[in-house]
Amino acid sequence: MQTRGTEFFQGTLAQRNEFDTVRVFDTTLRDGEQTPRTSFDYDDKRAIAAALDDANVHVVEAGFPANGPDEAEAVADIAAATDATTCGLARVVESDVTAAVDTGVEMVHVFASTSDVQIEDSMHSTREDVVERSVAAVQQVRDAGADVMFSPMDATRTDPEFLAEIVEAVDDVGVDWVNIPDTCGVATPNRFGDLVAFVGEHTDARIDVHTHDDFGLATANALAGVEAGADQVQVSVNGIGERAGNAAFEEVVMSAESVYGADTGVDTTAIADVSREVAERSSVPVPVNKPVVGANAFAHESGIHAAGVIENSETFEPGVMTPEMVGTEREVVLGKHSGTHAVRQHLREAGYDPTETEVREVTRKVKAHASDEGAVTDADVRAFAGEVGVERAQEEVSA
Amino acid sequence: MQTRGTEFFQGTLAQRNEFDTVRVFDTTLRDGEQTPRTSFDYDDKRAIAAALDDANVHVVEAGFPANGPDEAEAVADIAAATDATTCGLARVVESDVTAAVDTGVEMVHVFASTSDVQIEDSMHSTREDVVERSVAAVQQVRDAGADVMFSPMDATRTDPEFLAEIVEAVDDVGVDWVNIPDTCGVATPNRFGDLVAFVGEHTDARIDVHTHDDFGLATANALAGVEAGADQVQVSVNGIGERAGNAAFEEVVMSAESVYGADTGVDTTAIADVSREVAERSSVPVPVNKPVVGANAFAHESGIHAAGVIENSETFEPGVMTPEMVGTEREVVLGKHSGTHAVRQHLREAGYDPTETEVREVTRKVKAHASDEGAVTDADVRAFAGEVGVERAQEEVSA
Repeated sequence: MQTRGTEFFQGTLAQRNEFDTVRVFDTTLRDGEQTPRTSFDYDDKRAIAAALDDANVHVVEAGFPANGPDEAEAVADIAAATDATTCGLARVVESDVTAAVDTGVEMVHVFASTSDVQIEDSMHSTREDVVERSVAAVQQVRDAGADVMFSPMDATRTDPEFLAEIVEAVDDVGVDWVNIPDTCGVATPNRFGDLVAFVGEHTDARIDVHTHDDFGLATANALAGVEAGADQVQVSVNGIGERAGNAAFEEVVMSAESVYGADTGVDTTAIADVSREVAERSSVPVPVNKPVVGANAFAHESGIHAAGVIENSETFEPGVMTPEMVGTEREVVLGKHSGTHAVRQHLREAGYDPTETEVREVTRKVKAHASDEGAVTDADVRAFAGEVGVERAQEEVSA
Repeated sequence: MQTRGTEFFQGTLAQRNEFDTVRVFDTTLRDGEQTPRTSFDYDDKRAIAAALDDANVHVVEAGFPANGPDEAEAVADIAAATDATTCGLARVVESDVTAAVDTGVEMVHVFASTSDVQIEDSMHSTREDVVERSVAAVQQVRDAGADVMFSPMDATRTDPEFLAEIVEAVDDVGVDWVNIPDTCGVATPNRFGDLVAFVGEHTDARIDVHTHDDFGLATANALAGVEAGADQVQVSVNGIGERAGNAAFEEVVMSAESVYGADTGVDTTAIADVSREVAERSSVPVPVNKPVVGANAFAHESGIHAAGVIENSETFEPGVMTPEMVGTEREVVLGKHSGTHAVRQHLREAGYDPTETEVREVTRKVKAHASDEGAVTDADVRAFAGEVGVERAQEEVSA
């Protein structure tokens, strides 16, 4: 895919902390499915996994096989069908790991709480026990021949000394990936970057990050993790997931590609379709002002913005990201804040050849109608053109 | 308001770049209204301004008075009615500034494009002309006795040398505030922080920041601006605004209060109500996974999370931010991923006294129903309790 990345920003203040590549680990089917009131059935899981695979993500976390035979079957069939690495989740419990390994996934993701509040009030355990069980689970996956990722859950609220201890312990038994989860979404980019660098000092494994959006910082934190050395980011399509959700697939991929000029491997032109598929199957609609995939992400109404974009879309769009890059289209909307440029464009597209006076008259009608009624439809514009007496353009004589 | 801020994070990795206070400039009624397909009428504007005023924001940007007499009337009446500073927007055009000043607002916000792409293809002007008109507009506001904020629009895509030149020019005529807008949402936190520090070297004015969410980084960029020395952030409720919108009021305020432990002056318990008011009047619904104000922000369904939260809400919530702090409630939702803890709680709240075997049987029914049908209602739970034969709890004999 053609991106313009940092070249676009030449002549402006430099971007610090560049990175060239980042891998995408998608957890739409696991953390995304944990969205309250959302569930995916077998067909949903297969369809979403296929869409993610077509879009070229590196890893599809397909589910939590210990949840039951239906879940295990979906994970197994996804593992067999996709080119992407398929991953299954497991607690640090022997039967969970067995269930995950038995699906035939290429990667098992084992997790255990490491913050004191979760060790005590969720796992009802001790630090020592958590280390012991984590090491055993990682070893069990290794023995089964799959890649293993270990997550010290709630890493951002964990005593760094203990975090270093448990990371070193799983490193000793050959963990492939250490994931650093900001489980409760409390990180800031600087703090999270520091944590990623800190963990990197205690493991030879590759590092991946998992961020939550409780304060609206999930995407920024994920990118800060990559700036600090993480090789992979966990994302979900449309940012669905526990509570306020995960770092959004579309935001992280397009930030990395367009702002940092990095290569994610993802076919970005598939983003709009993947977003629509997940919205329908999760019953979580895409907000109109959702970055990248919302209906308004490339829509313009206000006079200055619409006029600018009609002349050169880079005036009031990022420029480094276009609607075409993500598989969607630009829209100039008519409403209360419209100016003459947008109205002229709409009239011409509807086949009229208005004078400048007529454009101004129709614009007045558009603004008044929008103030009173809200939406301005194409039929409204044609009606206003009729009231004002705008003539139709001459049909071009075809050769 | 009681927040816990950085104290909560003691024993974890330190937060860099602390700040103690930040002022909140709300632009819901200006940039927020520029959301495609959204318009606020007079009553909407008055009601939203009143809600923001009650929530104690520092500045309410009420509109763009040059848009017409209706807009000017709403701005004037808001200026007269609110304790917050009311601000009106103006281009660097004499009649715009006059229209703004005439409303009686305490602050006028003048803006001019400074990136070459916008100077050429939106303003159809030159750098020299933009400087001259900006200085004249700032002077005009000063002469009228109002506070003046100047925005070099598209600052993040502006040649830093020219940015310094125009900022110094308006500084020379006594500008009160320089706003740094990331108009097209292309900044990253580090880059934006560097830009804020750079601008600070070229002005004695106070600095405010305005960020857009095209890549999902608006909140992080706004906070990075404050980390780098900005005194004030521009936000909109629910993050509405041009394209993907602005930094969200609720995200910036709660990040500042809860994560940084800073004082915003905002009554955070009003946040849920303000969000609801703006959602209704803007016709932009609040996404379920919207941080802070979404229906799922404090909702839990999956077994481990729900069980943890029932025992101690800090296990799987940020802890530094509770639903009570933002005027809402926690919810434990039943669904495909529910465990016995959540089902037991729901049965007890519905007046049942289940045995452990009965809890497990109802849990199986809940999960099966959710897999097939999606939502599990209270009526469903009562039906399952009936099928399983769960007994009602004994009524307590009142004294």
